[in-house]
Amino acid sequence: MTEVHFNKVAIIGVGLIGGSLAMVLKAKGLCDTIVGIGRGKENLETAKQMGLIDEYTHDIAEGVQGADLVVLAVPVMSIEGVVKRAASSFKTGAIVTDVGSVKEEIINTVTAHLPEGVHFVAAHPIAGTENSGAEASVKDLYVGRRCIITPTDKTDKAALDKVVKLWKLAGSEVVTMDAREHDIILAAVSHLPHVIAYALVNSIADAGKGMERDVISYSAGGFKDTTRIAGSSPDMWTDICQMNKTALVGVIEGFQAELEAIKVDIEADNTELIKRSFERAKKVRDSLKK
Amino acid sequence: MTEVHFNKVAIIGVGLIGGSLAMVLKAKGLCDTIVGIGRGKENLETAKQMGLIDEYTHDIAEGVQGADLVVLAVPVMSIEGVVKRAASSFKTGAIVTDVGSVKEEIINTVTAHLPEGVHFVAAHPIAGTENSGAEASVKDLYVGRRCIITPTDKTDKAALDKVVKLWKLAGSEVVTMDAREHDIILAAVSHLPHVIAYALVNSIADAGKGMERDVISYSAGGFKDTTRIAGSSPDMWTDICQMNKTALVGVIEGFQAELEAIKVDIEADNTELIKRSFERAKKVRDSLKK
Repeated sequence: MTEVHFNKVAIIGVGLIGGSLAMVLKAKGLCDTIVGIGRGKENLETAKQMGLIDEYTHDIAEGVQGADLVVLAVPVMSIEGVVKRAASSFKTGAIVTDVGSVKEEIINTVTAHLPEGVHFVAAHPIAGTENSGAEASVKDLYVGRRCIITPTDKTDKAALDKVVKLWKLAGSEVVTMDAREHDIILAAVSHLPHVIAYALVNSIADAGKGMERDVISYSAGGFKDTTRIAGSSPDMWTDICQMNKTALVGVIEGFQAELEAIKVDIEADNTELIKRSFERAKKVRDSLKK
Repeated sequence: MTEVHFNKVAIIGVGLIGGSLAMVLKAKGLCDTIVGIGRGKENLETAKQMGLIDEYTHDIAEGVQGADLVVLAVPVMSIEGVVKRAASSFKTGAIVTDVGSVKEEIINTVTAHLPEGVHFVAAHPIAGTENSGAEASVKDLYVGRRCIITPTDKTDKAALDKVVKLWKLAGSEVVTMDAREHDIILAAVSHLPHVIAYALVNSIADAGKGMERDVISYSAGGFKDTTRIAGSSPDMWTDICQMNKTALVGVIEGFQAELEAIKVDIEADNTELIKRSFERAKKVRDSLKK
């Protein structure tokens, strides 16, 4: 197994995801120095005091100079702007990687701006907590979690190998797949449930409008579980919806067809069909852990 | 305050809901004797050994004879059959009450079969646990939970008064409202989320069909929360969908309109509208406790 070691790592966006990766790099001795790049001074100062990074800058072009690994850990919609500003400063031979929850669009965007000889490896660690910012970083965030890496025909094999090893060293189960496949899977198991949760809360709020009573106050555990993720960041989820538009619209339409079929069966008193549909769902759901 | 006391109470269906109500009746000394009525001998024997009931029978007509309070605690679709079999055996002046999560249809069904002089009071205690059967009964199941009572113009005032007092003595917050209003509220906050959870699981299972990978195994906390209630009883939820058809189809359509609007905005890159919609939902959801 090739040794994984970087002289200088630049982490753009030292939040929960970037900061926790910095912890891994430090703890495993995978690099000599880490520079944190971001806009908020307070967060970067915290990161430095926590020992996640050795130094920081607000200047992206300056920060990436000489780095042999650059981690794009900013919100997905900010990636293009960041890469544009860094493009002419990347070291030849540098590896650029990301942590975004959408892959095809990011690959297209990033590779369009990267100079010859700079290698992009797209990655998505499926991890997170309810907290954010550098101070939320934890060293075992990635342990036992999947990290999906989505190489293309053009991905540099040595760079891919290093990024795979990095995530394995972080404790992740690394899965390699096509970017489009990643986007469909994530649209299904993550992006669609978020859109549904937001839509459900709004439709209940609407249903209650004509009533004197506070309809939502009658909600019990089921509604609360089902809509918990409607408390997620509207900015982040708006971005993801935009970036993963094609796959997301596809799974929304699959869901719409399923719901419409149940509605039609309810209207037509097709109780056997309704029951079979519910039984099928229960069987699948019961196969997952709580 | 009028004293609430019954000589003989008949509980048809001694499961979690009926059994827990029996505990309240016993603990507060609200009756002389309780007869449990059901099909399963083992469950009734358990209920007797636990002291929830004094005696039991499988014969509905026999069980309700002489009872001044009859509690219908069977699944909603079984209520009509039960009432038909009991109808000619009710004592004149008896109060019949239920615990079903759908009200208008139950009121119509029950009152159509009740003889003159027998008083029906429809009630829905919003309580439950993941367990079922007599042995799951707990004495504080109703404490601090809402119980919705839905009288009509024809409801006997004295009977209503007694049922309200009974639920207050059980520790519930009693709310009185129109049956149709109850059905719309419950369709919105409970029945719709269940239908959505079932449909979501099935649509993800379908989305994964063309793929080699086990799509659902990529699900994280958000998907699991959103679909937890898809593990609920298909039989019970098929019944509820049928019994509350009108209100449920109404809220499904409200949700469909909301989801379609978000989908259209995603397709058209209307990011401001998407964000506003998500922000609105987050605000409503954040107002609820976890």
